[in-house]
Amino acid sequence: MLIPDLRSDTVTRPTPAMLEAMFAAPVGDDVFGEDPSVNALEEKTAHLFNLEAGLFCPSGTMTNQIAIKAHTEPLSEVICDYTSHIYQYEGGGIAANSGASVYLLHGERGKITPAMVRSGIRPNNIHYPLSKLVSLENTSNKGGGSYYTLPEIAAIAAVCQENNLAFHLDGARVFNALVAANEQPQFYGQYFDSISVCLSKGLGTPVGSVLVGSKEFIQKARRIRKVFGGGMRQAGYLAAAGIYALDNHVSRLVEDHVKAKILAETLQNCFFVQSIQPVDTNIVIFRLIDQITEKQFLQKLAEQNVLALDFGPQSIRLVTHLDFTDDMLDHTLHVLLNLKF
Amino acid sequence: MLIPDLRSDTVTRPTPAMLEAMFAAPVGDDVFGEDPSVNALEEKTAHLFNLEAGLFCPSGTMTNQIAIKAHTEPLSEVICDYTSHIYQYEGGGIAANSGASVYLLHGERGKITPAMVRSGIRPNNIHYPLSKLVSLENTSNKGGGSYYTLPEIAAIAAVCQENNLAFHLDGARVFNALVAANEQPQFYGQYFDSISVCLSKGLGTPVGSVLVGSKEFIQKARRIRKVFGGGMRQAGYLAAAGIYALDNHVSRLVEDHVKAKILAETLQNCFFVQSIQPVDTNIVIFRLIDQITEKQFLQKLAEQNVLALDFGPQSIRLVTHLDFTDDMLDHTLHVLLNLKF
Amino acid sequence: MLIPDLRSDTVTRPTPAMLEAMFAAPVGDDVFGEDPSVNALEEKTAHLFNLEAGLFCPSGTMTNQIAIKAHTEPLSEVICDYTSHIYQYEGGGIAANSGASVYLLHGERGKITPAMVRSGIRPNNIHYPLSKLVSLENTSNKGGGSYYTLPEIAAIAAVCQENNLAFHLDGARVFNALVAANEQPQFYGQYFDSISVCLSKGLGTPVGSVLVGSKEFIQKARRIRKVFGGGMRQAGYLAAAGIYALDNHVSRLVEDHVKAKILAETLQNCFFVQSIQPVDTNIVIFRLIDQITEKQFLQKLAEQNVLALDFGPQSIRLVTHLDFTDDMLDHTLHVLLNLKF
Amino acid sequence: MLIPDLRSDTVTRPTPAMLEAMFAAPVGDDVFGEDPSVNALEEKTAHLFNLEAGLFCPSGTMTNQIAIKAHTEPLSEVICDYTSHIYQYEGGGIAANSGASVYLLHGERGKITPAMVRSGIRPNNIHYPLSKLVSLENTSNKGGGSYYTLPEIAAIAAVCQENNLAFHLDGARVFNALVAANEQPQFYGQYFDSISVCLSKGLGTPVGSVLVGSKEFIQKARRIRKVFGGGMRQAGYLAAAGIYALDNHVSRLVEDHVKAKILAETLQNCFFVQSIQPVDTNIVIFRLIDQITEKQFLQKLAEQNVLALDFGPQSIRLVTHLDFTDDMLDHTLHVLLNLKF
Repeated sequence: MLIPDLRSDTVTRPTPAMLEAMFAAPVGDDVFGEDPSVNALEEKTAHLFNLEAGLFCPSGTMTNQIAIKAHTEPLSEVICDYTSHIYQYEGGGIAANSGASVYLLHGERGKITPAMVRSGIRPNNIHYPLSKLVSLENTSNKGGGSYYTLPEIAAIAAVCQENNLAFHLDGARVFNALVAANEQPQFYGQYFDSISVCLSKGLGTPVGSVLVGSKEFIQKARRIRKVFGGGMRQAGYLAAAGIYALDNHVSRLVEDHVKAKILAETLQNCFFVQSIQPVDTNIVIFRLIDQITEKQFLQKLAEQNVLALDFGPQSIRLVTHLDFTDDMLDHTLHVLLNLKF
Repeated sequence: MLIPDLRSDTVTRPTPAMLEAMFAAPVGDDVFGEDPSVNALEEKTAHLFNLEAGLFCPSGTMTNQIAIKAHTEPLSEVICDYTSHIYQYEGGGIAANSGASVYLLHGERGKITPAMVRSGIRPNNIHYPLSKLVSLENTSNKGGGSYYTLPEIAAIAAVCQENNLAFHLDGARVFNALVAANEQPQFYGQYFDSISVCLSKGLGTPVGSVLVGSKEFIQKARRIRKVFGGGMRQAGYLAAAGIYALDNHVSRLVEDHVKAKILAETLQNCFFVQSIQPVDTNIVIFRLIDQITEKQFLQKLAEQNVLALDFGPQSIRLVTHLDFTDDMLDHTLHVLLNLKF
Repeated sequence: MLIPDLRSDTVTRPTPAMLEAMFAAPVGDDVFGEDPSVNALEEKTAHLFNLEAGLFCPSGTMTNQIAIKAHTEPLSEVICDYTSHIYQYEGGGIAANSGASVYLLHGERGKITPAMVRSGIRPNNIHYPLSKLVSLENTSNKGGGSYYTLPEIAAIAAVCQENNLAFHLDGARVFNALVAANEQPQFYGQYFDSISVCLSKGLGTPVGSVLVGSKEFIQKARRIRKVFGGGMRQAGYLAAAGIYALDNHVSRLVEDHVKAKILAETLQNCFFVQSIQPVDTNIVIFRLIDQITEKQFLQKLAEQNVLALDFGPQSIRLVTHLDFTDDMLDHTLHVLLNLKF
Repeated sequence: MLIPDLRSDTVTRPTPAMLEAMFAAPVGDDVFGEDPSVNALEEKTAHLFNLEAGLFCPSGTMTNQIAIKAHTEPLSEVICDYTSHIYQYEGGGIAANSGASVYLLHGERGKITPAMVRSGIRPNNIHYPLSKLVSLENTSNKGGGSYYTLPEIAAIAAVCQENNLAFHLDGARVFNALVAANEQPQFYGQYFDSISVCLSKGLGTPVGSVLVGSKEFIQKARRIRKVFGGGMRQAGYLAAAGIYALDNHVSRLVEDHVKAKILAETLQNCFFVQSIQPVDTNIVIFRLIDQITEKQFLQKLAEQNVLALDFGPQSIRLVTHLDFTDDMLDHTLHVLLNLKF
């Protein structure tokens, strides 16, 4: 039996069918705009979210960082929750790549409200940076997989429009949000100016993310991708995996959500758990009791062939995904219930 | 009678004696290092704080921004209170000038603790920026003139040293802090790697700030000043005012502190005041009752020839200084006690 | 018959054997450092050039831009030929990504000399940026495939060492240079601090470049790759192509060089050619006579199923490669000799 | 007798009348927009050049760097002569402050032509930075004081307009150009989008430069000045010197030009001179014969109480100015004619 790896949904490997699709893909030099698979993926994703154009990139960090750079200008500021991936886990890229300042909001489980966004808009005064961009993360990683519904998104979009702010979505796990909310991606296009659509997490492809937005925005984004060195040649092999995943791996995310709920229910009966965050999608975050450190816990777990992630002081994160099978779930539940310290 | 201007201690004009000192200053081309007054001020200030060298700059914003750029490197992060002038009021310069990210602490009245600093240091992991610099502001403007004592500073300095972090002081009102704590500047040199010493606030000069630090640091700072365009030619006229102020305007700050306390006591008897922040130095911040807006209040006050500053929702700031005389204090108290809406 | 595409050696598609190697590659999450194919490629490339460590990236632009950012610091300058890819074709990234200035040399066919490098080193004076990095391109694209020999490289390396400058090689076509000079890659490691080794040009892989250097340098580079968004997940499919190419596609580059020479000889007999640059490797650059524009020429050629590249006023570039077969060469020669306007 | 200091026209000290004007100046807090002398200088300078608004800054480097940052955006490029002060002597600020690339032209004595500018405009292709700004320097320092006439400026402005490029003038010595060409400043406003008007060189003030442009541009510039830390408080003392200089020190520049010509004529008879550049304004640049180094020459000169500047290999620069009197000229000529090695 393979080891259940719950550290992240990025660890998935392509299924045989996906791999077949990849290696049958027609390819060309994408720098010349001639890779048919890349072109098809970009169009497909843009269409799906009802936006004009797309850009395939090596990672979600790149699609986010490109979007931030394209939406801001020197001396400007990005408004986002302090737990956001763009602020916490992209190496300080908002400042490093775009020279943009951040206004950090303190939302609930990573989710911010229209009132919070309003409070973060700077007065027009040369002492302050220019408020330019609001960014959401859906689902929220640090928020334990919490998600925004369309009406929540619409309300924040309205504040952005009133105040001439661009609106970006870090859609690292956007399909988990859509599946959980039972919503369709095509309604997103009217609210967001740009969306990072990640393919290598829940969707299970090996590499890549698609940035979608208006034609003009994507043209600007293409320029920034070039400067970051994100332009690839025969990237169609990777893009084909994305096409396959969009066709085959979206609706099945509900299975990951069910497994996450089962994990959480079991954890409620484990002596080493102090508290568990609500489980909305495929992420489970819980606190260990004070007597056990993260390090101790993860080692014990690994000895039983289960991998999880240290998620800050006393916190452990589990993420369910395509490669976390029913058998693995059974094994994991068994291990959790019998863990001894 | 002149109008009491309590908006800021930056509004002071040179005294006749200071103007005379300026007028008589020997000058030269400071870009060639040949302005004797600038050289004297730089040495005097460095000596005062027991550091090796100094650099005269057009503003405290520049000395802060230069220090941040000199102490950081690409992909790094600055740890400071979220109310800090360097983050809030320098146009987003931390990101714009240095490409550095910020880790924002939530201190009490602008003051942070060693434990808070520790919590802001990032693990060594490529997902995070490199923690490089801790910055204090003493006194704290948004904190209403609160100040750090030497033991408090020493404790934070210890955390910086353990973790290989540079330690900068935004000394916009450092002499107010020293006078209030009854401490001597020479003890600061052992704790801070750099200090911005502002001359144009409480000290009453027209223009300028001196950055002090090690010789090597100031050499680097001089290079950055050049790139920002902060190198001036015959700046000795301005520097002479600084020398005069260091000799004559430090110990008198106690008078400003007394006046601020008197203002606060009087405000406690004013019906339009909801609450007043503690007054430690020369800044008084109070909240208006909900029935009166800042705009209304400031206008009423201005009609009675007293100027104050809007300091955010329902908040008003008064700052005492060299040009706020005893007569003006009497007039202001009279006005406050008789204000009608 | 397939169309001979001489626009660039980036247009190659994997051979069946390379595709098989890709398809069979073991993969893992490279962000966790767990992709065995990526790890193997990085080690193999570093070893080949006698340097400590490697970093796999989506493009040669990224390996170059990371190297520049890692070797420079704010207020510094890069010394290179004005024709360099890093200056001309990477979107202004030296300034945009690193904030570094450029000192542009005017070498012969893209090749610079120790004396030129010396002339580009700035005096130690705050008016100037800090000279920090010298970058070569081998072979030189704009120089028509001209190459440096080891003694030439050693002589420039000596100037760098004397003056404390880092030394980078843009090895977009480094194997063409090595094959043409009949030299071994392992001698490069002692001269260069970093090398961009491109896999997707002459070597014929679909995507990627490996940056090699010291362990410490690669650690820093990994951080910068993260901020650019160049970290990929299961990148092993791409890396496996690189391993295959290093094993199988290096020595065959001599065939491309022979074909380029044959093309050049034939062009000497074509009426539409004004002059031809010397042909040292796999690039042929020639000038059209004034009566024919690049656009006209390329269109005529395309009508005969041959693709070439507009390379500036009156200039045409042809690049031979893995997918340019003997049959295609025959066809191309026939077309060139019979072209009519 | 005072020592003739011909190193630069920046070394001048205020005349007694200028000093009197400075210390009689009404001042206020310019950060609040309340310094009447600063406001008057900004308006006066803008009016003089027929542009809408002005911004007083501590140096010409700052006015240039602000203009570059305001006119460019990320991934863009500045077109200028390779001898330009903005490229050569501002610490690499084009890249460091604005992240902008440079396209360097090779004009004659620092002067570029419309055809050269055209050749520097990049095609619309993501491999290249965006051409955004053309910058002239008038007079040209490295060009030995060469100047542009209005028709020459108009011709370059036409190329800028056709190609949607901003057009900036580094007017470090713009009044020398105007006086030499016998032209009026008000005709400049229609051609340039922004002008740096330096007050501390030929005009003889101690500190400062005014940036002029449209109201919208100056608003943006004010924001950038804040981030660089160039906002000063009671800067009116310095501004008053500028007002005085504009009223009294412009037409007299012709005297400096005459003195420069006399110096050049004398140098033609000096055995140690290999060649002399044409003298158009107040700068004289000459080459020493190979037997004498710059260091030796400057030391000999200094022993005779005359100061000059090392201006690169075998080159010496002399600059005439307000403080270089008739007596000093006589002394200098005598020294030059009798120098022995």
